[in-house]
Amino acid sequence: MKAHSVSFEVQTRGQGTYEITTQVREIVESSGVRIGTATVFLQHTSASLIIFENADRSARVDLEAFFKHLVPEDAGYFTHTSEGPDDATSHIKMVLTRSSEVIPIAEGELQLGTWQGIFLFEHRRAPHQRRLVVSVIGG
Amino acid sequence: MKAHSVSFEVQTRGQGTYEITTQVREIVESSGVRIGTATVFLQHTSASLIIFENADRSARVDLEAFFKHLVPEDAGYFTHTSEGPDDATSHIKMVLTRSSEVIPIAEGELQLGTWQGIFLFEHRRAPHQRRLVVSVIGG
Amino acid sequence: MKAHSVSFEVQTRGQGTYEITTQVREIVESSGVRIGTATVFLQHTSASLIIFENADRSARVDLEAFFKHLVPEDAGYFTHTSEGPDDATSHIKMVLTRSSEVIPIAEGELQLGTWQGIFLFEHRRAPHQRRLVVSVIGG
Repeated sequence: MKAHSVSFEVQTRGQGTYEITTQVREIVESSGVRIGTATVFLQHTSASLIIFENADRSARVDLEAFFKHLVPEDAGYFTHTSEGPDDATSHIKMVLTRSSEVIPIAEGELQLGTWQGIFLFEHRRAPHQRRLVVSVIGG
Repeated sequence: MKAHSVSFEVQTRGQGTYEITTQVREIVESSGVRIGTATVFLQHTSASLIIFENADRSARVDLEAFFKHLVPEDAGYFTHTSEGPDDATSHIKMVLTRSSEVIPIAEGELQLGTWQGIFLFEHRRAPHQRRLVVSVIGG
Repeated sequence: MKAHSVSFEVQTRGQGTYEITTQVREIVESSGVRIGTATVFLQHTSASLIIFENADRSARVDLEAFFKHLVPEDAGYFTHTSEGPDDATSHIKMVLTRSSEVIPIAEGELQLGTWQGIFLFEHRRAPHQRRLVVSVIGG
């Protein structure tokens, strides 16, 4: 049994989804863990993590449109707007998704389903440097 | 310290919630782990996992009604509909809930609260065979 | 490698967010784990956990206002109301957030970002005693 911790950064280009499956898979493979879990954690409060359909880009287009409708910038009652109209809405979109995703490892491989990818979901309009930590635990 | 990985399948009969607490509890008990965590992971992008009230069925009826209102099939702006009107909406309902649930183990037992059950939340209208992986880690 | 399990309680004063970062940090420090994960789990179905901005209180004010709009008590179709109008809505707000949060540990410390805090999100109007379990796993 062992525990590994690796961090990496992703440069976003504004609102949208950015696949990070390859980076996580490489960390798992280099850990040598055969059975266990990989915990992916994002150290920010205005971006989040999701596991989502990674085959057809249109699923992500619809997801992003839905979140714009669900958390509208012109809701009229937001007060946390010192960094702009995408300030409060970014935090709320983050809390409706996740800061971490935990994926089982078996036979030395991430146990993602056929159509599952891991994505960073950027909620701010401006480009940001985002930092992630991956903990791999197992034997 | 040890790590176990077990997978199992659930046959759904269309949209709704299906309790899987018993299956997860049995995997934890057979693992022999006394203190640690159980990670339940669903390998699909149009169904999800939730921990929810398992005593009164009406709580789940309200939950399912709420999700139908929150993510309406007739929103008008969905483009990912090649598999039907429940295609994009299923992915979005999934991302608003979870692909994994992590539950602590202590004294050899899942540390669920009195009213907590683990459920598979099927978002597609058609019946589906769903595959889950449970990773148990601990000592 | 080792696994620790510690539980603690939080007394809420009704709907709102209650920071628990200090309690979790102390459990991690006393565990002696240098690399691994901390799983925080809430044993209730009408309150939840979130990781959220902990610097500016206005972000949490907006979050709480958003959830009141998103899951309105007067939706008209809720049936699970035996404990009052905040009964079904509390379960739904819980499922839109989380029962658990998993945070990596590295160099003996929780790897939270600069602005991230762990919060208990109470959805019931009445004060409640809430019980949490923290599992720390690693080496």
